Amino acid sequence: MKILVTNDDGIDSAGIAALAKGLKEIAEVIVVAPHDEQSAVGHGITMKNPLRVSKYFKNGSFFGYAVEGTPADCVKMGIRNIAGKPPDLVISGINHGSNTAINIIYSGTVSAAREAAIMDIPAIAISVTNHDARDFRYASKVAQMVALKVVEHGLPNGTLLNVNVPNIPESEIAGILVTKQSKAKWDDIYEKRTDPYGKDYYWLTGKLVEIEAELDTDQRAVKNNFVSITPIHFDLTDHDTLKKMKSWDIEKVVNEKTI
Amino acid sequence: MKILVTNDDGIDSAGIAALAKGLKEIAEVIVVAPHDEQSAVGHGITMKNPLRVSKYFKNGSFFGYAVEGTPADCVKMGIRNIAGKPPDLVISGINHGSNTAINIIYSGTVSAAREAAIMDIPAIAISVTNHDARDFRYASKVAQMVALKVVEHGLPNGTLLNVNVPNIPESEIAGILVTKQSKAKWDDIYEKRTDPYGKDYYWLTGKLVEIEAELDTDQRAVKNNFVSITPIHFDLTDHDTLKKMKSWDIEKVVNEKTI
Repeated sequence: MKILVTNDDGIDSAGIAALAKGLKEIAEVIVVAPHDEQSAVGHGITMKNPLRVSKYFKNGSFFGYAVEGTPADCVKMGIRNIAGKPPDLVISGINHGSNTAINIIYSGTVSAAREAAIMDIPAIAISVTNHDARDFRYASKVAQMVALKVVEHGLPNGTLLNVNVPNIPESEIAGILVTKQSKAKWDDIYEKRTDPYGKDYYWLTGKLVEIEAELDTDQRAVKNNFVSITPIHFDLTDHDTLKKMKSWDIEKVVNEKTI
Repeated sequence: MKILVTNDDGIDSAGIAALAKGLKEIAEVIVVAPHDEQSAVGHGITMKNPLRVSKYFKNGSFFGYAVEGTPADCVKMGIRNIAGKPPDLVISGINHGSNTAINIIYSGTVSAAREAAIMDIPAIAISVTNHDARDFRYASKVAQMVALKVVEHGLPNGTLLNVNVPNIPESEIAGILVTKQSKAKWDDIYEKRTDPYGKDYYWLTGKLVEIEAELDTDQRAVKNNFVSITPIHFDLTDHDTLKKMKSWDIEKVVNEKTI
C-alpha cells in the first residue's frame, strides 16, 4: 500500500512527522507538503504563479517534497508528478486545531483531502482539537486504524473522511463515533487597532457558536471526548431548493436550441 | 433594499463595475471587494495577518471599500464592520470566467457568496463564461432579475445561487435553466520549465473533462448557450456513506460518557 501524506501546517510541523512515522508501519509513505504554513487557505490552488518543489530533509534524512503552494497544490502535484503510480490513499494532517463544523469550509487540511477525492483517490483528513497540541501519538494510531478501515471497505468516488481527535490523553478518550457536520459557525469580531503610522488595521477574532440540538455531530462528539469521523463530499447542489425553484417561473427557453 | 457587492477579480475589474451599476437601479449598493485579484483562492480567510481597508475611487468618485484580503474576508468585513444594518442580499461577481462543475470548489467568487450564506444572508454568485469577457451588460441584467426573484421567493438559510452566463450576445442566448453542479473536473498537467538560474518550476494547466450523461447540469447548460442557475449549499455530510459506515464496526464507546 502506498500513502501520500500532506498537511496545511507545513512540512516541518510536528503533526505531519507523527503521521508519516505511524503510517510507515503499514505502508510506503510519500510526503508532499507545503513549504510554509497554509492554515485557513481553503481550497485555493496556484494558477497565476509557477510552483516550485524541493526535497526536504529532517535531521539529515530525506523526509519528503516541499511545495511552495497550497495544500491542494501539494496533492495535485504529488499525484500527477511525484508519486509515480497513484497512491492508494491520501491522508492530510495531523492538523494542529480542530476541523469540525463550518471550519471544514476554511480548512486547508480538509481541502487537501478533498482534492484527492476529486481525483478519485480515497482520502482522510485528520486533526487534533487544539492548536497547542504536542502529543500526536494517539491521533497517529487513529489515522492508522481509519486508513485500514478505508482500505477494507472502500469509499465512494468523491467521498472523504474528516477525522477529529480530542487533545486529551488516550486513557480519557470516550470512544469513536461516525458523525455529521455540525452547523456551528463563527460569531466574528474584527478587533480594530492603529499602527505606529496612524493607519487602522483589523484582526479577525470570534467564537464558535453552537446552534443545534442534534447530538450526532462532529463538534458535539469531540467536545464530549469522542473521536469524530465524518464522511463528506463535494456535490454542492441543494437538490431540495432545486425542486422548489421549478415553481419560481425563472426558467425559459427563448431559442429553439435544446441541451 | 440594500445589496453588498463583492468579487474575486479585484475592486478595479470591469465585471464588478457593471454589476454595481446595474444593481443601483434596484437597490442601495455597497461595494466591498479585494484590493487585488484573488482568483482560485477558494474559501480562504485571513487570520494570521491583519486586514486593512481603504476607500477606493473610480474616475474621481467614491466606488467602494478595498480590503487587502480574500473574497470571503470582504464579505465578513463588509457585513460586520461596513454595511451597518445587514444587507438584504450579497452578490459576488461578475466573474471573468465560468464557475461551473468542480470550479465551484476553487472559486473565490462563489466562496464570497457562500460566506454570506453562512451568515444567513441570501447570496448570488455570477460569472461570465470567458476570461476575456468585455461586455457585461446582459450578465448585469441577469443579476438584477435573479436578485428580484430571490427577494420574492427567499432562499433557505445556507443556500446560495450560482449563476453562469454564456459570453455571447444577448440575441444568441438560448434561455435560462435551473441546473445541478456538473461532475466535470480538470485533467491537470504540470508544465515543467527551468528558470534562468537552472532551477525547475511548474505551471498548472489542463482541461475540463466532461464525464456525465445528464443534461441538466451547469456545464452542459452554458455550453449550449443557456444561462445556468444552480442552488448550492455547504452541508458537506455524505449522508449515504454515513449510513453505510454504521456497518464498518468502527464506532465504539470505551468510557461510560454519552454525548
